[in-house]
Amino acid sequence: MIPIRILSDNDVKNILDIKNTVKCVEKAYALKANNQVRLFPMVSEVIFEGRAEMDIKSGMLKEEDVFGLKLVSWFSDNKNQGLPAITGLTMLFDLKNGFPKAMINASYLTGMRTGAAGSIGVKHLSKQDSKTLMIVGTGVQAIFQIAATLSQVQTINKVYIYDPVKYENASKFEYSIKAELDKIINDINDTNNKSWKQRIESVQFVAVENPVKALEETDAVITITPSQKPLIFKEWTKPGIHFSCVGADMTGKQEIDEKIFEVASVYVDDITQASTVGETQSAIRASILGKNNLTEIGQFILGNAKGRTSDEEITIFDSTGIALQDLAVSKYIVSKAEEMNVGTIVYI
Amino acid sequence: MIPIRILSDNDVKNILDIKNTVKCVEKAYALKANNQVRLFPMVSEVIFEGRAEMDIKSGMLKEEDVFGLKLVSWFSDNKNQGLPAITGLTMLFDLKNGFPKAMINASYLTGMRTGAAGSIGVKHLSKQDSKTLMIVGTGVQAIFQIAATLSQVQTINKVYIYDPVKYENASKFEYSIKAELDKIINDINDTNNKSWKQRIESVQFVAVENPVKALEETDAVITITPSQKPLIFKEWTKPGIHFSCVGADMTGKQEIDEKIFEVASVYVDDITQASTVGETQSAIRASILGKNNLTEIGQFILGNAKGRTSDEEITIFDSTGIALQDLAVSKYIVSKAEEMNVGTIVYI
Repeated sequence: MIPIRILSDNDVKNILDIKNTVKCVEKAYALKANNQVRLFPMVSEVIFEGRAEMDIKSGMLKEEDVFGLKLVSWFSDNKNQGLPAITGLTMLFDLKNGFPKAMINASYLTGMRTGAAGSIGVKHLSKQDSKTLMIVGTGVQAIFQIAATLSQVQTINKVYIYDPVKYENASKFEYSIKAELDKIINDINDTNNKSWKQRIESVQFVAVENPVKALEETDAVITITPSQKPLIFKEWTKPGIHFSCVGADMTGKQEIDEKIFEVASVYVDDITQASTVGETQSAIRASILGKNNLTEIGQFILGNAKGRTSDEEITIFDSTGIALQDLAVSKYIVSKAEEMNVGTIVYI
Repeated sequence: MIPIRILSDNDVKNILDIKNTVKCVEKAYALKANNQVRLFPMVSEVIFEGRAEMDIKSGMLKEEDVFGLKLVSWFSDNKNQGLPAITGLTMLFDLKNGFPKAMINASYLTGMRTGAAGSIGVKHLSKQDSKTLMIVGTGVQAIFQIAATLSQVQTINKVYIYDPVKYENASKFEYSIKAELDKIINDINDTNNKSWKQRIESVQFVAVENPVKALEETDAVITITPSQKPLIFKEWTKPGIHFSCVGADMTGKQEIDEKIFEVASVYVDDITQASTVGETQSAIRASILGKNNLTEIGQFILGNAKGRTSDEEITIFDSTGIALQDLAVSKYIVSKAEEMNVGTIVYI
């Protein structure tokens, strides 16, 4: 009989902090750039046209001695019954013998690893003294983007909240944001989130109806929407701004004006995914740039590629989401769960 | 929190019988022929060249309200530590909301569904009064092939056991076969396997060193080896014989002389898989037949295609193994486990 550790979403919330999530995702990017990992072909299927989809992303992390998969499903009708539309889980297997190791609810995990990705773009590519962040989109993923960025970029003291659909969403989001941020553990060693509470209090959160004026003083933008058309236009952007584009992960999705790519240095998590299903796809289609103009962020993390070179440069990080982020974070969660004796062991 | 039923290999052994496994597999074939199912693209990856592989087969069964996957890994070095080389599990998800329903150890399940497949070929395509079966191969899967065939084809009263590598393997297999067969439940309603014990006792099991003479009186052959070259030649076969070829499931595998295809009616579980990774691949490569000469067995089960038409006809069933077998059997296992309150419920 093989022991498998089962971790619920609550288990994950209790042991996963922002700092370690970011470390894991940076490591996954670096290992990818170093060819220490493999991404297996993605299975992406429509179950019921327009109503239900599922995908299976899998791969292996040699250094971490694991391979595994994440299955995510989207069933839009769930909302009518008060159930979450998106559910997901990761399965981790031992690279020494192929045995299953763990099954983890991937809801919170996905929010955290996606937030980490957006923040890594801001941390490494925005101007050194960036003070103002704008978040575009106020869905369930937005809070993780803000949390990770505030955790990683200490200079930021103002966050503009812009909802492209409805101002009220931004305004509601602003109202509850401090309490929501405090639910996330920033550093597992910071008892009761003490320093984190102070950090949250040091920031001003402002819902904006029109992004144009706010963009004048914005240093970094994170877009996290399901949009299929540009929400931020080139005319609105000033020199030196950084974009972490996190929403686009399917053909047809787009969040920022493709013309911004004409004047930007572009970093991506995975060149193939970014150019086909990421934010970059529209610029590639418009022949604004080619694949050879893209730098994988792992190359920058490894020191093999340069980052921002001046305060006037515009930078873009296109994060499409790769299985390796999930695997690296899952592996960390399992190690932490073993250490803290969290979860349920079943034998199969 | 979502409840997931976890079923160990022992749980499966206690609730899965041959009769219901065969019913599920026949149903899966029929649903496939009826377009009530979908097979998703297979992920098949070498982890370490020549030493470790893994694949993920997935799909959905509309009528059964489930979708899911089976992940199987093969790590050959495990044998050195007394561990099984092959491990697998299936994950079942609810087609109504995408939620995970169950995780099942797929070791015994795979043996049973593969045995069912081989037996379905013999049951539907061998001569009506078939008395003698030959099994080629004495690995872990062989016992399931024999068990399912004895369960489904009551006329069979003799089983030749041929091991193409070493006669001693066949002889050892013969020695323990009755006890091994009795470990498998034939009919969950047959208390203590009473009728099944009688059925086993009614059969003569004979290990053979040379298959040629035994083939003279063999009505049906099941091949279940990892061979990459023919083990049974056309010159050895007589009119009216049936072959269920179960071993081939990868490029390069072959168990019977491709020339047998010149004179046989050929049935397969899946035309695409059979012609690329199944026993049929060698006949296709040798231009002995084309894809349009292949009949999916589900079409026969549905009554849309004819079966054997005379006692002289040679028939072949090429079973490559499809995810739908696993899903249908897994769905049955979960229903039975719910009814019998078997397994562990965890919440994620």
